Amino acid sequence: MTPVELSKAFRLLNHGPTTLITSAHGSQRNIMAAAWVCALDFNPAKVTVVIDRNTYTRELIEAEGTFAINLPSVQQIEMVKQVGSISGRDLADTDKFAEYGIDTFAAQAITAPLITACVAWLECKIIPEPHNQATYDLFIAEVVAAHADARVFSDGRWHFEGHDDLRTVHHIAGGVFYATGQAC
Amino acid sequence: MTPVELSKAFRLLNHGPTTLITSAHGSQRNIMAAAWVCALDFNPAKVTVVIDRNTYTRELIEAEGTFAINLPSVQQIEMVKQVGSISGRDLADTDKFAEYGIDTFAAQAITAPLITACVAWLECKIIPEPHNQATYDLFIAEVVAAHADARVFSDGRWHFEGHDDLRTVHHIAGGVFYATGQAC
Repeated sequence: MTPVELSKAFRLLNHGPTTLITSAHGSQRNIMAAAWVCALDFNPAKVTVVIDRNTYTRELIEAEGTFAINLPSVQQIEMVKQVGSISGRDLADTDKFAEYGIDTFAAQAITAPLITACVAWLECKIIPEPHNQATYDLFIAEVVAAHADARVFSDGRWHFEGHDDLRTVHHIAGGVFYATGQAC
Repeated sequence: MTPVELSKAFRLLNHGPTTLITSAHGSQRNIMAAAWVCALDFNPAKVTVVIDRNTYTRELIEAEGTFAINLPSVQQIEMVKQVGSISGRDLADTDKFAEYGIDTFAAQAITAPLITACVAWLECKIIPEPHNQATYDLFIAEVVAAHADARVFSDGRWHFEGHDDLRTVHHIAGGVFYATGQAC
């Protein structure tokens, strides 16, 4: 794991990978799959994320003001499908991390856990924009720390060659994903 | 070319492809490459697009209120690089379409031209949000018509198998792109 310069953090998202959003507030924590995540600015690094108003994640990130964007690889497809198939609100006395055996480690600047074995992580702080949040479920956030797996991202760019099992994923529809493909 | 049901238009963008934004106002028209394009809502279909305030495209879309999102394939990588390397404002007595021999056809609901040989097209009408536009260069738009190349998108989903030359592209950095890869 290597730190990513914040002015290069947009490059983690530039190719449009599907992500996992992690959140925590008090003793509660959650994880959801999200494809509608996009770079918004270079420096300070900003992103947009769409979080439906009915999700448990929405409740936690609005209470805490922070969340993490984790980028899963093709090795983690089954986990991505699992966490996308249920609400953390419906799990009694447990959470999705325990339910599905998802290992995490501590973030640097926020409370949300980061998912082990993902290939990049963006720690984000919400820039309050109540109109966007209420009208469009659209959140704007500043990236306050970023990290990547140095085997596939270094010097500000992805290099998946030789690491097919670490390629990021792109959700098409109904649980079908494409891996990030060949350079062209 | 086949029409795409508007409630399924988000699926054209769900996997995060790099796009070409086309615009027109009066006798002026332009084309720019844009990776920061994202689905925002299902029905009515909405998208977010980041358009820098210094671009010629910004001038045209703010004047006209509409634009098109075109999805290029791997066959069009050189053209994507060309249109991203110069501002249409700097071309005297011509435009990027003429300069680079880019063929177009008429959109259904808007004035912006659609690019021939792309694999999907979303015709968009800006929902005015002056604060987002001024503060973040962020535009929200409703998709008012959508079309796709039926060889690779039909019944609401992508199917690139057997059509490697029609795979969409994902910009990494500095003119390096990855093709949409294998299903996983």
